[in-house]
Amino acid sequence: MPVATSGLMTGEQYEASLRRMHFKVFLQGERVENVVDHPIIRPSLNSVKRTYSLAQEPRHRDLMTATSHLTGKTVNRFCHLHQSADDLVRKVKMQRLLGQKTAACFQRCVGMDAINAMDSVTFEMDAALGTGYHRRFEKFLLRMQEEDWTVDGAMTDPKGDRGLPPSGQADPDLYVHVVERRADGIVVRGAKAHQTGALNSHWILVMPTIAMGPEDADYAVAFVAPADAEGIFYIYGRQSCDTRKLEGGSIDVGNQRFGGHEALMVFEDLFVPWEHVLMCGETAFSGTLVERFAGYHRQSYGGCKVGVGDVLIGAAALAADFNGAARASHVKDKLIEMTHLNETLFACGIACSAQGCRTASGTWLIDLLLANVCKQNVTRFPYEIARLAEDIAGGLMVTMPSEKDLANPATGDVIRKYLQGVASVPTEHRMRILRLIENLTLGTAAVGYRTESMHGAGSPQAQRIMISRQSNLGQKKELAKNIAGISDKKEEKI
Amino acid sequence: MPVATSGLMTGEQYEASLRRMHFKVFLQGERVENVVDHPIIRPSLNSVKRTYSLAQEPRHRDLMTATSHLTGKTVNRFCHLHQSADDLVRKVKMQRLLGQKTAACFQRCVGMDAINAMDSVTFEMDAALGTGYHRRFEKFLLRMQEEDWTVDGAMTDPKGDRGLPPSGQADPDLYVHVVERRADGIVVRGAKAHQTGALNSHWILVMPTIAMGPEDADYAVAFVAPADAEGIFYIYGRQSCDTRKLEGGSIDVGNQRFGGHEALMVFEDLFVPWEHVLMCGETAFSGTLVERFAGYHRQSYGGCKVGVGDVLIGAAALAADFNGAARASHVKDKLIEMTHLNETLFACGIACSAQGCRTASGTWLIDLLLANVCKQNVTRFPYEIARLAEDIAGGLMVTMPSEKDLANPATGDVIRKYLQGVASVPTEHRMRILRLIENLTLGTAAVGYRTESMHGAGSPQAQRIMISRQSNLGQKKELAKNIAGISDKKEEKI
Amino acid sequence: MPVATSGLMTGEQYEASLRRMHFKVFLQGERVENVVDHPIIRPSLNSVKRTYSLAQEPRHRDLMTATSHLTGKTVNRFCHLHQSADDLVRKVKMQRLLGQKTAACFQRCVGMDAINAMDSVTFEMDAALGTGYHRRFEKFLLRMQEEDWTVDGAMTDPKGDRGLPPSGQADPDLYVHVVERRADGIVVRGAKAHQTGALNSHWILVMPTIAMGPEDADYAVAFVAPADAEGIFYIYGRQSCDTRKLEGGSIDVGNQRFGGHEALMVFEDLFVPWEHVLMCGETAFSGTLVERFAGYHRQSYGGCKVGVGDVLIGAAALAADFNGAARASHVKDKLIEMTHLNETLFACGIACSAQGCRTASGTWLIDLLLANVCKQNVTRFPYEIARLAEDIAGGLMVTMPSEKDLANPATGDVIRKYLQGVASVPTEHRMRILRLIENLTLGTAAVGYRTESMHGAGSPQAQRIMISRQSNLGQKKELAKNIAGISDKKEEKI
Amino acid sequence: MPVATSGLMTGEQYEASLRRMHFKVFLQGERVENVVDHPIIRPSLNSVKRTYSLAQEPRHRDLMTATSHLTGKTVNRFCHLHQSADDLVRKVKMQRLLGQKTAACFQRCVGMDAINAMDSVTFEMDAALGTGYHRRFEKFLLRMQEEDWTVDGAMTDPKGDRGLPPSGQADPDLYVHVVERRADGIVVRGAKAHQTGALNSHWILVMPTIAMGPEDADYAVAFVAPADAEGIFYIYGRQSCDTRKLEGGSIDVGNQRFGGHEALMVFEDLFVPWEHVLMCGETAFSGTLVERFAGYHRQSYGGCKVGVGDVLIGAAALAADFNGAARASHVKDKLIEMTHLNETLFACGIACSAQGCRTASGTWLIDLLLANVCKQNVTRFPYEIARLAEDIAGGLMVTMPSEKDLANPATGDVIRKYLQGVASVPTEHRMRILRLIENLTLGTAAVGYRTESMHGAGSPQAQRIMISRQSNLGQKKELAKNIAGISDKKEEKI
Repeated sequence: MPVATSGLMTGEQYEASLRRMHFKVFLQGERVENVVDHPIIRPSLNSVKRTYSLAQEPRHRDLMTATSHLTGKTVNRFCHLHQSADDLVRKVKMQRLLGQKTAACFQRCVGMDAINAMDSVTFEMDAALGTGYHRRFEKFLLRMQEEDWTVDGAMTDPKGDRGLPPSGQADPDLYVHVVERRADGIVVRGAKAHQTGALNSHWILVMPTIAMGPEDADYAVAFVAPADAEGIFYIYGRQSCDTRKLEGGSIDVGNQRFGGHEALMVFEDLFVPWEHVLMCGETAFSGTLVERFAGYHRQSYGGCKVGVGDVLIGAAALAADFNGAARASHVKDKLIEMTHLNETLFACGIACSAQGCRTASGTWLIDLLLANVCKQNVTRFPYEIARLAEDIAGGLMVTMPSEKDLANPATGDVIRKYLQGVASVPTEHRMRILRLIENLTLGTAAVGYRTESMHGAGSPQAQRIMISRQSNLGQKKELAKNIAGISDKKEEKI
Repeated sequence: MPVATSGLMTGEQYEASLRRMHFKVFLQGERVENVVDHPIIRPSLNSVKRTYSLAQEPRHRDLMTATSHLTGKTVNRFCHLHQSADDLVRKVKMQRLLGQKTAACFQRCVGMDAINAMDSVTFEMDAALGTGYHRRFEKFLLRMQEEDWTVDGAMTDPKGDRGLPPSGQADPDLYVHVVERRADGIVVRGAKAHQTGALNSHWILVMPTIAMGPEDADYAVAFVAPADAEGIFYIYGRQSCDTRKLEGGSIDVGNQRFGGHEALMVFEDLFVPWEHVLMCGETAFSGTLVERFAGYHRQSYGGCKVGVGDVLIGAAALAADFNGAARASHVKDKLIEMTHLNETLFACGIACSAQGCRTASGTWLIDLLLANVCKQNVTRFPYEIARLAEDIAGGLMVTMPSEKDLANPATGDVIRKYLQGVASVPTEHRMRILRLIENLTLGTAAVGYRTESMHGAGSPQAQRIMISRQSNLGQKKELAKNIAGISDKKEEKI
Repeated sequence: MPVATSGLMTGEQYEASLRRMHFKVFLQGERVENVVDHPIIRPSLNSVKRTYSLAQEPRHRDLMTATSHLTGKTVNRFCHLHQSADDLVRKVKMQRLLGQKTAACFQRCVGMDAINAMDSVTFEMDAALGTGYHRRFEKFLLRMQEEDWTVDGAMTDPKGDRGLPPSGQADPDLYVHVVERRADGIVVRGAKAHQTGALNSHWILVMPTIAMGPEDADYAVAFVAPADAEGIFYIYGRQSCDTRKLEGGSIDVGNQRFGGHEALMVFEDLFVPWEHVLMCGETAFSGTLVERFAGYHRQSYGGCKVGVGDVLIGAAALAADFNGAARASHVKDKLIEMTHLNETLFACGIACSAQGCRTASGTWLIDLLLANVCKQNVTRFPYEIARLAEDIAGGLMVTMPSEKDLANPATGDVIRKYLQGVASVPTEHRMRILRLIENLTLGTAAVGYRTESMHGAGSPQAQRIMISRQSNLGQKKELAKNIAGISDKKEEKI
Repeated sequence: MPVATSGLMTGEQYEASLRRMHFKVFLQGERVENVVDHPIIRPSLNSVKRTYSLAQEPRHRDLMTATSHLTGKTVNRFCHLHQSADDLVRKVKMQRLLGQKTAACFQRCVGMDAINAMDSVTFEMDAALGTGYHRRFEKFLLRMQEEDWTVDGAMTDPKGDRGLPPSGQADPDLYVHVVERRADGIVVRGAKAHQTGALNSHWILVMPTIAMGPEDADYAVAFVAPADAEGIFYIYGRQSCDTRKLEGGSIDVGNQRFGGHEALMVFEDLFVPWEHVLMCGETAFSGTLVERFAGYHRQSYGGCKVGVGDVLIGAAALAADFNGAARASHVKDKLIEMTHLNETLFACGIACSAQGCRTASGTWLIDLLLANVCKQNVTRFPYEIARLAEDIAGGLMVTMPSEKDLANPATGDVIRKYLQGVASVPTEHRMRILRLIENLTLGTAAVGYRTESMHGAGSPQAQRIMISRQSNLGQKKELAKNIAGISDKKEEKI
């Protein structure tokens, strides 16, 4: 558990705070003793650390920090509840900035999106049902802001058989549920899959994963807990090319400093005191919570993936420069197309923010239709941007000798000689850029740039369902009837 | 010339004002005597009229009107200079509304976009060169606002051989140019092609069409003139299915009430007094003017075409309802895709507005990169939306008997019997909806929804060039170098 | 009824034979007395006529004709049963040739595809059920070949409510059905929609439109009849821009000589003698018949639309030449893309032919999976080819003055002056090419090139269902299990 | 060097023959002593071995073997010169079969495509220039067939600065060239990049990589050499996730048995006796050789990648089965789309084969236009198929714990419990299928399925140039002129 700090933590303070945590983690068959320094995990910690260190830089303050509506103090924007459409826009720009600086998933968004969703939903739940969750939530939020916590928003259950509801599964634990209600709190069992940045977080905020009916009451549970609480353990997810980080080099990893991670989070009858419980049986609100969290998180992708896309576009442009192809009209056209697609994503991120609206609790919500449209495009365009980057990069990206061969005196000079592109650029630079493109399209970062773009914040079909619900087809039909002269309504005067 | 009115004109006043104009127009081989009542032209006038009548409705006032920065009075938004990002956003929403209400091009945007571009460019031109254009422009604008004029922004020259500059053409008149400079004004010759809504306009605002070098000084000319001035005449452009409007029915036209038009506008040594001249030889500013006008107009398409798309989506949904296919999962999915694409366009329109910035004159300019991204998507998505609409509509859309066959006693009952879809919907309703879809995908409105989406405000390649210029590839390369560890700059601390 | 001719008819003989027919046709509210010379219908007749006249040209004999398996005589390939994969390939190439020569739907394919499907199905039906349809069919075929008939293959019923089967419709006539069985024949009632080339045909071959259950026995009916038989009448379908053909010019029509048509064909208690009945109640075979006819017809689109595409690509290339843009790299790239898409369609047409197989009757059948894949691509690529053509053509295509304005002395010179492209090409040539592109993308031919590409031979979803059925997913799963090491089968030795 | 065998080698004989080779190879910084048993290389050898073992199976004989035109004996089809269009079709089907059996690149195609190209080009070169290459080539071919060799076709030079020709590079060795002509042979220097399957080959067949002018005469060189000749050494290319093969498991590798490889092949003043030289200075023929080899190899991709696609489609279908989503309409539709795209590739492979033609030497050549169209689609569709597979697979594919965690008693049961999908399928099976999809979309096989689909046999732009050259735009323009009525040629009679 981190010690309280005053105001914004520095990157070093963040790292130190994590060193004081006691995670129970397994990775490739072994218990990890030192999470912070594990070479496979470390780059992901660096990405989160960047959310702290950039907040220290004056030129990024307007994006990286905000003024708390609770205290009036300056807080990291990741701990902030959006108080305006402008806050929503700045959030997206902050995410683009961090994507540019890390070329990876920086993980801290999930908690930001979770607190924003939790705020309005607990408020409305209390108003409707007379519960007292919002006060508890605000108390947690206050500490989060004061201590500048990274929080893991934990939503996705393993789900077992997708054709069955939580309470219909062969194993009742395939969705997180309450197994005991005690005077002092509840006991929960189950797991959350795909937990982005879990091991770089101070706390977790657990939420249900789907809309539920009354029969699923035990599954409608939300709470906060220290990420290293007794009763929680983690199995680290492996990524494409993850073990290159164990090889000791700096080229073949593609992105030596930054990365992301996901883990399976398991609750072995975790005890949660009532003060930390934010939903317990209110199935009527689980759907709204999912919808809002997903909405915020779908907006997020209109920022973070755009920033990563900026790096990939830049890398592709360098690859073309380095092999003397930058003036070819088809290369220029492909870079334009990559930019066009990337900026379309950004436009969607901005638009759903600018069109946001105030909820009852005062926190601003994105435009749900446009946020889903944003994410739906994110399930497509990064794939095409990646394809175009691979086109420009050329086949060498996947046939190059390893970094160790470059270091080997028996082969190094040969590699330098034959993999030279334009004479003015060192072969190693060319190799580094190609490895970066490989990292983003096939390697560890492809997990974030491709698969997470596809499934993060909900798979494509989830957005299509929301688009359908939000599309107001009835009004559109009325417009068409009016033009076609078959409306029941009085014809409008021209 | 219209008589001055106080404040906002009603639709009727607008129509009356046009009746007082004296256009010289040719259409299908004949001189048109009565422009307002010509059955081929009339629907386009109705569309413009809607920009007046909707401004009278209280519930649309916030979109349709604005407060003049010159007078503080309420003016039609089409006469307004955008004073904030919020104004830019409202502009896009107004255009979506009008697209929904007309399912056609309502034409009045061109002038709105022209005055907004002209304002900042004349201001900056005066500041740089000591000219006095901005005062003249404001004087014109004041009258335009007071009298609620529709203005045709005239930019596109015929251009002849695209491989040659204005002064290099075989015929010097293929770009509008000054043929005489007199003490009291200038004489111009040439033509403007594709003049949207020209015959529904009170005035025209003529601008150059490309960036120019010093050798093209006579071509760098901008001015205003009454649309029916001596020395201007028009040849009306024909549209797909235009003559169905002469058949006297209400079904086969698809959209009986609304449409758009384009015309070839010819200047036969038109005299323009100096007071109306807004650029004359300042070639250094022709590029900026084109860029800004095109930028505003590319934003516009993120509103108007979205509104038309709403009608087309509604029509496709009705077509499915009417033939009993609405529950088929593939039909539902196609409607979702149409909505997704349409809202992506809207998101781009909103984003380039919300990210707008103030120019030196105080008028707000859209984000140029995002406006070009917006338009680039408009050159693609309406085509796919149309394709999906044709998919849902079925082949009957293009094989149905004519309206006259429906009216013919010998065939009417047979048509009603065999073209019946679900039993509860009259066959005629089904026919009307299919004709509306035909109108939007193949007929008169396809000119606006397809070809204008492609070429209006500049053809696709024009946007790609702008995207390239605005993409800041150098910064993106620096981001990639930094991640790859080959930056010349000091490595940033994590 | 045509008089028998020996062997191949010339174009003139075909036209003369149609003049002897007595069609009952309605078009735009009136009874058509002279089908052959009606200006709206005539271009479609010319297209069919081309299938006769080209067969007379020695250099096209190998594609246009074939050797009858019945008589050993040379017959028009449109009357031929495919005797080999090579025959199937030649069919596709013949269709591409005709598409190139007409830039329109030449209509005669439907009958060719119908006889090929009918042959194997009647053969198999007889074998399974002891019926005697195949002999009747061969007798008809012999006359068809001897007299070189154009036959309309009539399949698509109006279908009413798509959610209901034939026998479940509110009106029992919404699918063609037997209303009386008599000693000498049957009486049928109903209609067939979208009948391509019906009025240019000598005979019709009527088939059921879907797979049926026993309750639909009266609807499982197939037969032949003279196209102008008592009891059949037609209502002509209107097309986009159809009435331009009444204007008397040669430019605005885009394609003056050729076109296609569809009509609603109505059976008013038509009597069919038993000798002409080819299916009557054998519901178990209606599905196979539909599948095979659709399969052949989906193959056809890999030829005819490719030929039309060739013309459109050529027209777009000329449009670029004519305005001096042919050397722009983006224009060249768009022409390459159009060619690539068009040839992909051709490849699919060739592949499903080359992979054809022999049926029990000896007639060759296309590869059903690949034929459906072929057509599925045809529902997409012509739309993109058309979009790219509109891109290259420029906006003038839809804003040009009419042909009558060009002829008007008051405006003709102005049009010639201002719509001039490169100086060496007459303005009229430029206008003609743009009108041809308009014709193919928005006008009468767009009905064939776009909507028919979408819905002809079955709408997109129909192909997807067939692709699903033919995809052998079980085998693919087994392949994956084998590679993944989870197969139940003995692992294959490496 | 392999010992001669009579007729077809078995898989075991092939493996044994490779054990007798003496390759000089470096891999990840070290010299590899035992190529055959190296765990990273071994799966690629298994893939090639499959080309031998499948040829032993009677049911695959018609695809896997052919009758030598030299000897009349049965030879492995990979050693065969195509004697008919049917041979070309069988080649594609053999490749699909092998793709299905290996889910990887089986590497032996390059040599097959090289000998087929070399045959006709040496024949035509001799005819034109009086050289004697074809006899030498046939002598080599005879041994290749007799001894059932795997030959590496080596074409791609490193190319340095793409803006400069071979002789213009800063380092003259960036293209392979002759550095000495001796009485007994030539000495060559340079390197070939991306050498697929080089270390699984007996011989190499080196060819120039681009069309050349007279100034590049030393670069126009083709020859054969034993793959382990003195003067050749290799640096092994690293692939995404390659080191998972060193971990000792069977799950995380995705495809335990099969793979592909590429290597950098370096000629350190390699001596080649004249008997093995097949081109030396005949620059006029280098372009034709490249065009034909590339043409054959672009055809190949219409087979091999389709086979791999079959496995990926099957794996995606299983992933859906295993998590209970197989009945969701969007999942079914995505599988249909994957199948549709995959079969479109196959159709292109078949079509360019079926439309092949005989060359002067008697060897059959594919249709060049369609082969380029085939490959151009291969640069697109596998990416979309992969994207859809990732969509269906779900995020677990990239967040799953490692195989070692499954084996670890502390975590294995938890993984089995929480990653269970439908109750009837073991969790391990689900993990295996997801790892297979990961392998094909991000891992070692993605190198072959994605990047090789992009760049193998030439990058996308290379195909576009060929499509442009082969598209006969002049004829298409003439077609359009004819329809538009502006042809110089006499109008064709209708």
